[in-house]
Amino acid sequence: MKLYTDSTPNGIKVSMALEELGLPYDVEHIDISSRRQKEPWFLEINPNGRIPAIVDTLEDGKQIRIFEGESILQYLTERYDCEYKLSFPPGTAEYWECKSWLFFQHGGIGPMQGQAAHFLRYAPTKIPYAIDRYVTETKRLYKVLDTQLEKSISGFLVGDHVSIADVAALSWVIYGKYVEVDMDDFPSLKRWESMMSERPGIQRGFHVPKPLAVKSNDPKALEAYAQHNTTWILEGMEQDRRALGKRGL
Amino acid sequence: MKLYTDSTPNGIKVSMALEELGLPYDVEHIDISSRRQKEPWFLEINPNGRIPAIVDTLEDGKQIRIFEGESILQYLTERYDCEYKLSFPPGTAEYWECKSWLFFQHGGIGPMQGQAAHFLRYAPTKIPYAIDRYVTETKRLYKVLDTQLEKSISGFLVGDHVSIADVAALSWVIYGKYVEVDMDDFPSLKRWESMMSERPGIQRGFHVPKPLAVKSNDPKALEAYAQHNTTWILEGMEQDRRALGKRGL
Repeated sequence: MKLYTDSTPNGIKVSMALEELGLPYDVEHIDISSRRQKEPWFLEINPNGRIPAIVDTLEDGKQIRIFEGESILQYLTERYDCEYKLSFPPGTAEYWECKSWLFFQHGGIGPMQGQAAHFLRYAPTKIPYAIDRYVTETKRLYKVLDTQLEKSISGFLVGDHVSIADVAALSWVIYGKYVEVDMDDFPSLKRWESMMSERPGIQRGFHVPKPLAVKSNDPKALEAYAQHNTTWILEGMEQDRRALGKRGL
Repeated sequence: MKLYTDSTPNGIKVSMALEELGLPYDVEHIDISSRRQKEPWFLEINPNGRIPAIVDTLEDGKQIRIFEGESILQYLTERYDCEYKLSFPPGTAEYWECKSWLFFQHGGIGPMQGQAAHFLRYAPTKIPYAIDRYVTETKRLYKVLDTQLEKSISGFLVGDHVSIADVAALSWVIYGKYVEVDMDDFPSLKRWESMMSERPGIQRGFHVPKPLAVKSNDPKALEAYAQHNTTWILEGMEQDRRALGKRGL
């Protein structure tokens, strides 16, 4: 199995799951600031031009591609997690509940926290309305997680053990401070984040394909990460805009 | 099975799938402009306080909840689509490919087109940077679909027949004009939209729980829909902001 990834929230969720499951895999670092993910060879692997993506082989020898972070998490557990280390037996109540939380992350926290980061860290001017909209929405979503964890007997989002629902949410929650969320407002989520972050598999996964800035002890590492992102993200937006036609604004 | 829904892109994807599959279901209309979806009884069904959600019963009599649109689409096909009308046999290449496109919709088109609608239609002031960002991203995502469909022999997104990947994407693509996307720029997507929209099951699904404004022949219906949304969406944002603490902006 080959993993195409970079050091981002969406990238590390896959390496965390692979490490927790103990599966063998090769890594190819796609430096997204170089726009390699937009090259024709990579669009054959992910037509959306984003990391993460994986390529694997079916029993009949056929090569397949899987793209989108949570799609890969489902793939890994459905195909390889026979012992239900990160999942639940198909058809059980926990199996369905885990599915809902996985999509909750994929369509909620990821996209919305991503917009909070954009307007706080990358946009060329500070637009208070947009910052407020997305930081508030991120907090609202964290509150949903916090409430679920507060009620949880096991301490995990679903059932009696860790699952891909936890891995998916963790990948973004560790970036809470990057969008100015005070984790003290979410005590159950904060406890869960610490517990999850102490797991050896999770820790190995953080640092694929390179050391993770948000987990660095150097306070300047996160600022450098933000500065680096600003440049290529704004260039990428401009390229997309030229390609797709500017509106008459 | 009971479906809690409203007349929105995320709501109709579930009714479209239920109608295509020919499954029996009861509907409860949750008028989201009344914030019923935030009431405690509904948070037991979807802790995120959003539609759509369903409640169903397992073989052992246990009641389960499923929330998030694409989570429900997976549930319906995994549990009930034994003839693979909207899905593919587990473990096949088409099964995995369908999964990726489902998540592509859930984390991409839905959230980003939703932001385009917000800044074009609902935000109290016109913010050109935000409008441009999200309309461009919506077009970029439509282009990904258009390219996939252009290469498709069957005319569907995955494999040789219609699937939940098509249903999921259609739910947002029919709102393209609502965010000022010119469908003539995406000819394969436009053809697919027409073909999909002619299916009797899809047509029945459009109009659950009430006639769909975007499919109305009255040009004022969409404006009325936008005006109605503006009021409750901005009120909801303000309530969330008060509950979660305003930033010092």
